[in-house]
Amino acid sequence: MPIDADLNDPALRRRAVQAARQEVPFDLLITGGTVLDLVTGEERAADIGIVGALIASVHAQGSSPKAETYEDATGKVLLPGLIDTHMHVESSMITPMEYAAHMVPRGVTTALWDPHELANVAGRAGMDYAFAAARAAALRFLPLVPTCVPSAPGFETSGADFDAETIAELLARPDTHGAAELMTMYPLLTGNQRAQDIVAAGLASGKRVCGHARGLSGRDLNAFVAAGVATDHELISGEDLIEKLRAGLTIELRGSHKHLLPEFVDALLNLGHMPQTVTLCTDDVFPNDLYERGGLDDLLRNLIALGLPPSWTYRAACLNAAISISRPDLGLLAPGRRADVLVLSDLKSVALESVFMDGKPVARKGAFSGEQKNVVLPVALTNTVRARKTVPRDFEILASGPQVDLPTLRKPRFPEWGQRRFDVAEGNVKIPPDILRMAVIQRHSPDAEIQNALLEDWGPLRGAVATSVSHDSHNLTIFGQTPEDMSIAANAVIDQQGGLAVASSGKLLARVPLPVAGLLNECSLSEIADYFVTWENALNEITEWRPPYFVLKALFGASLVCNPGPRLSDLGIVEPFLTAHE
Amino acid sequence: MPIDADLNDPALRRRAVQAARQEVPFDLLITGGTVLDLVTGEERAADIGIVGALIASVHAQGSSPKAETYEDATGKVLLPGLIDTHMHVESSMITPMEYAAHMVPRGVTTALWDPHELANVAGRAGMDYAFAAARAAALRFLPLVPTCVPSAPGFETSGADFDAETIAELLARPDTHGAAELMTMYPLLTGNQRAQDIVAAGLASGKRVCGHARGLSGRDLNAFVAAGVATDHELISGEDLIEKLRAGLTIELRGSHKHLLPEFVDALLNLGHMPQTVTLCTDDVFPNDLYERGGLDDLLRNLIALGLPPSWTYRAACLNAAISISRPDLGLLAPGRRADVLVLSDLKSVALESVFMDGKPVARKGAFSGEQKNVVLPVALTNTVRARKTVPRDFEILASGPQVDLPTLRKPRFPEWGQRRFDVAEGNVKIPPDILRMAVIQRHSPDAEIQNALLEDWGPLRGAVATSVSHDSHNLTIFGQTPEDMSIAANAVIDQQGGLAVASSGKLLARVPLPVAGLLNECSLSEIADYFVTWENALNEITEWRPPYFVLKALFGASLVCNPGPRLSDLGIVEPFLTAHE
Repeated sequence: MPIDADLNDPALRRRAVQAARQEVPFDLLITGGTVLDLVTGEERAADIGIVGALIASVHAQGSSPKAETYEDATGKVLLPGLIDTHMHVESSMITPMEYAAHMVPRGVTTALWDPHELANVAGRAGMDYAFAAARAAALRFLPLVPTCVPSAPGFETSGADFDAETIAELLARPDTHGAAELMTMYPLLTGNQRAQDIVAAGLASGKRVCGHARGLSGRDLNAFVAAGVATDHELISGEDLIEKLRAGLTIELRGSHKHLLPEFVDALLNLGHMPQTVTLCTDDVFPNDLYERGGLDDLLRNLIALGLPPSWTYRAACLNAAISISRPDLGLLAPGRRADVLVLSDLKSVALESVFMDGKPVARKGAFSGEQKNVVLPVALTNTVRARKTVPRDFEILASGPQVDLPTLRKPRFPEWGQRRFDVAEGNVKIPPDILRMAVIQRHSPDAEIQNALLEDWGPLRGAVATSVSHDSHNLTIFGQTPEDMSIAANAVIDQQGGLAVASSGKLLARVPLPVAGLLNECSLSEIADYFVTWENALNEITEWRPPYFVLKALFGASLVCNPGPRLSDLGIVEPFLTAHE
Repeated sequence: MPIDADLNDPALRRRAVQAARQEVPFDLLITGGTVLDLVTGEERAADIGIVGALIASVHAQGSSPKAETYEDATGKVLLPGLIDTHMHVESSMITPMEYAAHMVPRGVTTALWDPHELANVAGRAGMDYAFAAARAAALRFLPLVPTCVPSAPGFETSGADFDAETIAELLARPDTHGAAELMTMYPLLTGNQRAQDIVAAGLASGKRVCGHARGLSGRDLNAFVAAGVATDHELISGEDLIEKLRAGLTIELRGSHKHLLPEFVDALLNLGHMPQTVTLCTDDVFPNDLYERGGLDDLLRNLIALGLPPSWTYRAACLNAAISISRPDLGLLAPGRRADVLVLSDLKSVALESVFMDGKPVARKGAFSGEQKNVVLPVALTNTVRARKTVPRDFEILASGPQVDLPTLRKPRFPEWGQRRFDVAEGNVKIPPDILRMAVIQRHSPDAEIQNALLEDWGPLRGAVATSVSHDSHNLTIFGQTPEDMSIAANAVIDQQGGLAVASSGKLLARVPLPVAGLLNECSLSEIADYFVTWENALNEITEWRPPYFVLKALFGASLVCNPGPRLSDLGIVEPFLTAHE
């Protein structure tokens, strides 16, 4: 069954035909506005006649005036709903319904959601929650099937294991929209059977295999795309963007790395046109950013401010996106399309006046008025931090002899191997002040061993921070100077069944409770944003790492085992990328 | 099963990955050429590495040199195969295999074929032949399901009747690619149940419902698109093109109406970019044109000569087309795509040096070397002109009284109602020299009545012409001055089981035998082109209608009952459009 089946109702189509011919009135007529035509690039005065969930007519102002209800859009700009082509709700730490309540008023009506984090923690139960939430939320979430559960099999312990067979089963569901970002680039390139089987399942489904081609170039980029991968959002420069466009990848241009946007805009302006293979996405947005600046709308604002023409920017976010995700009902204000209509008071600042979805008003002046169902939280998503409480000595590294040579992880974000000689005293390694401690505790069972590692060149951390948000397996990860503070932070996270904590000088400074799978909170976005900002401020007080973005990425990514380089996982320091190359 | 399933073979993908990384050689490396990048618009030096039917790598010249075989493309331009998004093989009067043998060397590797004429004559047997031929031919024919069999039910007798149920059955086949051009515009707009059911079957299939929106504008255009129609190729002006782009239709810009091309080019140049919803098509190409000038390649040549940038033109014919027909394996020279590669010696003149399909050479310097199977002609496609032989008095109009008032069809191509008073002598209407006769004979059974009509303001025809190619039901249609010549021409067509004939002064001047369904000949394109030119020359000798294109369209379209205005069908003079409005 096609995914836009509700629009296929013959009675609805008949009524739309009759309304377009003005034999019957439109249900709703949006009058007096200016349509930004994403096909022709024109801004033209037009009224939009709507019947049910369908646009029946886009016509010269006043030329087909008969309607049951009217929306005055005089002086306003009309656009189709924005489409986020790659995102993880989990990064915003709220439920999909709460996400929808905040993002629909900002014009985001459709989002391809990869519930990668929920799946890694809670497996099929996490997916079931995602499917139920996608149905319940006012925002049109189109779930993807996570392909990296875990992202480095054998090198970390995830809460679930999605093999190719599981992925094929999930892809066969009509409500899944592709295989989500394949992060196992190097295993795929080097012939890992599981990675190949997963891609084969994706290709066989006839749905898209989405990619994650971070840093791939030249031969490896060609190989990754030849394997069957269709998209990428992991751009690292303007040059990288152009190389990936040349490789035929559909680009999900990402808002979460703002420092790169000027390069992307320059690269596109140099091309002289907006390629139809460029779409826009948010990937990960932290709750405070989402609350203060928005998500996909913020990316559009930034791109336009950097000089990307508004018609190019909206074309990428609407028409290009709709085509790339095989949803011909979306992305354009034209007859026969789904009536997702944005009424903007200003095009460049993405200032929303009202939002219609499926022909119904869902937001006015930022206030959400859409209907959503509640989704009862499955038991499998609660009490997911099963690690036992810690004591400070859990974070000591035991050793014998007067001295010991130990490996270190050098530099945050993309660690490299290091090596240092340490003194040993009373059976423990003595840690000098320029060295930090890191620990990972497998959180899915109470009797897992704690893994410790030493960090070099990370900069000072006058205390400790703990997180159950720790890509991709989301085991409990703790960074700190002293075992005492580390234990306080870890126990705070364990006590609240997931989330973030900061401790210093023997005291808990701040925390973010994320009791749903250790990832989300059912509270409001403003509440979680408050928690998050408080926690972030506390973190900034005890560290010199700047900007904060970098701290968070360093924290959440330090155990991102699937990326190149050494990482600490719940199984110890591993480097699967290297292993896969051997 | 996805339509590009052959490319999903894991062993093929693995080998492509390895070849891209140069761990194994490419099967074929095309070296030294310049790729016209249809995404970025750049022309850039690149080598193309191919493995099986797959492009494994497009890389800087010389950077991945290992291959089993090489193709030197130094100084040449490289492009993906051209895609014709709407065509009827039948108009070229040859078999699909013969069409392929001529068009593949001209760079056309994929064509969406609406076997509308074969279906109208031979129904499911015609479709079965089309499916078999599509599998057998070297050109990648993607069959559409005809939606207008007949195009005006109840107003003409076709050889078959495809109701919504039949169409749904055909759309469920994995080898059909959409519901073909819906010509029943006015029935659909005015609530005809059959037309609505057919669109509903198309929408329910999840495949595209293609359109035929000739002359639709304003409210009716909105209504037609709101009904669920996705495409149009029936453009009548530059303004019409822009209105239909604004309506969100995917445009199949047509080459068969050359006088309109300058307007289209101007309209697109005014937009300043090539919309992604513009594709290119041939629709109908007569055999002599196909032989002398080509098909889709001729359209590209003309558009470029008129000033459309080559990168826009090829983008429409390749990338836009592939995206619009949901074939992500086509339309781009990039890794992971199907290895349909054109080697051109000149971009603007579409001068082909060699053609590769699925990674194999299929043409060099115009010589076809592809492999094709033969398709045995089904019995149902032979002896399809079952009308009994005619005698001159069949073409007399019987009447009594000294005078009679009769309706006439005024003006060729798009006839209007006329009325004239005629003398009657010896029981027959006396026809003055400025009036022509037209007759339609239902050809599917031997005992159908002949229907006669009188044509006013058509210009002189010093003889008669008969054709079994007569849209859309392809009944035997005869135009002439005298019953004697009309009978000679009609009998010549009946004798040869279909085709075209011209007679004058009691003699048969020329004929085109089309014994396959009265539409095609299994001979070579050059033979049928010779026949056709001889016939056309004979026709030009006996008529002043100019240009010839107009004569043919007038002949083949005079019984095109589904178009507005009065038409003569095998059931008499009818005007279904008017009826549908009542």
